[in-house]
Amino acid sequence: MKEDYFLEIIKKTLPESADFIGDDTAYIAEKDLILTQDTLIEDIHFRKSTISPYYLGRKSIAVNLSDIAAAGGVPAYALISLSMPENIEKTFIEEFYKGVHDICREYEIFVVGGDLTKSFQITISVCLVGFGNGLIPAGRKNAKAGDYVIVTGNFGSSRAGFEILENHLASDTLLKFVEAHVNPIPRIKEGRKILEIAQTPALMDASDGLADALSKICLFSNVEMRINFDDIPYDKDLSLLAKNEEEIFKWILFGGEDYELVGTVSEQSYKKLVDSKIPVKKIGVVVSPDNLPCPYVKFGNKIIKIDAELINKELFKHFL
Amino acid sequence: MKEDYFLEIIKKTLPESADFIGDDTAYIAEKDLILTQDTLIEDIHFRKSTISPYYLGRKSIAVNLSDIAAAGGVPAYALISLSMPENIEKTFIEEFYKGVHDICREYEIFVVGGDLTKSFQITISVCLVGFGNGLIPAGRKNAKAGDYVIVTGNFGSSRAGFEILENHLASDTLLKFVEAHVNPIPRIKEGRKILEIAQTPALMDASDGLADALSKICLFSNVEMRINFDDIPYDKDLSLLAKNEEEIFKWILFGGEDYELVGTVSEQSYKKLVDSKIPVKKIGVVVSPDNLPCPYVKFGNKIIKIDAELINKELFKHFL
Repeated sequence: MKEDYFLEIIKKTLPESADFIGDDTAYIAEKDLILTQDTLIEDIHFRKSTISPYYLGRKSIAVNLSDIAAAGGVPAYALISLSMPENIEKTFIEEFYKGVHDICREYEIFVVGGDLTKSFQITISVCLVGFGNGLIPAGRKNAKAGDYVIVTGNFGSSRAGFEILENHLASDTLLKFVEAHVNPIPRIKEGRKILEIAQTPALMDASDGLADALSKICLFSNVEMRINFDDIPYDKDLSLLAKNEEEIFKWILFGGEDYELVGTVSEQSYKKLVDSKIPVKKIGVVVSPDNLPCPYVKFGNKIIKIDAELINKELFKHFL
Repeated sequence: MKEDYFLEIIKKTLPESADFIGDDTAYIAEKDLILTQDTLIEDIHFRKSTISPYYLGRKSIAVNLSDIAAAGGVPAYALISLSMPENIEKTFIEEFYKGVHDICREYEIFVVGGDLTKSFQITISVCLVGFGNGLIPAGRKNAKAGDYVIVTGNFGSSRAGFEILENHLASDTLLKFVEAHVNPIPRIKEGRKILEIAQTPALMDASDGLADALSKICLFSNVEMRINFDDIPYDKDLSLLAKNEEEIFKWILFGGEDYELVGTVSEQSYKKLVDSKIPVKKIGVVVSPDNLPCPYVKFGNKIIKIDAELINKELFKHFL
């Protein structure tokens, strides 16, 4: 997907909206509204053979919740547009909405509408509405030199889960990776706490990979980052699946679909976050831009510059 | 599409949301929010060969604006999820968003986000956010015996336009039908005025056909209607395209995609609407239910009962 190229065209054609185009959420200050929308398409974003309708229902809401989490917002209402072939099984619909029902109850959000239509592939487009509730949502423009770079959980697990599902590798010790892939946990509580404590954090979710999130924060905040690969949290059992250290590195940085938060906060805010028992981990620091505003990752003896070219080359496209 | 069957399954699986499921818009009273979402899929809802990208952009917003119009609401923000094959032409994107841009400017709404992804067919899912702004949005439950049944414009024109496009019949006198099909006018101003004057009208748009809208109002308000076919406004040039009177009848009642408003208001409100120069026309009256709550249409010497069975049989499914 030549997404950046398309985004530039859209920005030019919709100049009034240029500030909003390309962001995962929109914040309407005068109404305190946070809006986000994500579409999942069969055989592009998922395969019917590797995710059950129940988890597909959960995930279609979770990926949108993750965007609200990255804003530090409070999610409230969902609209679900479900398009499907006419011969779909009744149990598919029941299980899909059971998944929707369960995750909506867990996060106290309410399905208020949507659309139902015929299609060739199963297509799910969810719009989620949330609120800032007294806090101004985080974005990706707030990183400052001296900030700590933080993350909320493990990376590479979703990519490993995908590997297991595609290659029928499941064993019970590895099921946690499948779980990470089909049932990601949106970091609503963590996002809110980070916003409450840090007030103006930079924050994104890592849905398109850790490297992508770090690099977007650098680009939009005009900063560099020094990331220490050894500090990035990941499940050591990745080594049971990956061919070598280089593959683990790629899964962690470019694997995608880890719905963890990635952000920057001041040293004091980081300490308060740790004290508040929110599971955040420091993986590096923000520095003033010397050159191109992008992350540099120390991996063994090497310093790897994460520029757009590398991301385009390495970003794992699950089905694209 | 066995839509009603699917809706029943969804209502059972999402019991908390049952009141919202199946409605074209959701109204969140405590936030004064009106939410709606509609999805258009290539070769299901449109064909690339019969609608240009510019008008597709306009129409994808217009069909959602029409739902806000039926609520009598004030539209404000749009999210657009566009999914498309990777080899899409640059001009497609430019023209599509030019259409979006123009209609958004005309209706003073603002594109604040969305999603861009790869797909097999062009798929557009738009979420529109509006507000009640001091008035409680109309629904389909408010029809009362004695009310007048009103509509805002011509019926059958979109169906005729579809006929022209599919069968390459265009002549300059008939282009108005093509226009009605590809560039429908959402009745925002009319819907707002109806709500302001009538306060508690029943109101829907006729996107799935006049018969469907009338029958849903009857069902949800538990009333019958006496409709006089000769009072339903339509362009007399339909006779240049339709085979006979019966076909004109079908196009008008079941053709669909006429984004006109259909509703019920009191006699006094109707007079005020006519005085205010809002182009509404009375096509019948609401009566207490004798039997099944549904519309009865006088067509020549016949009285035709518009029940679910007839709608299922006759509803024109453009590509389904």
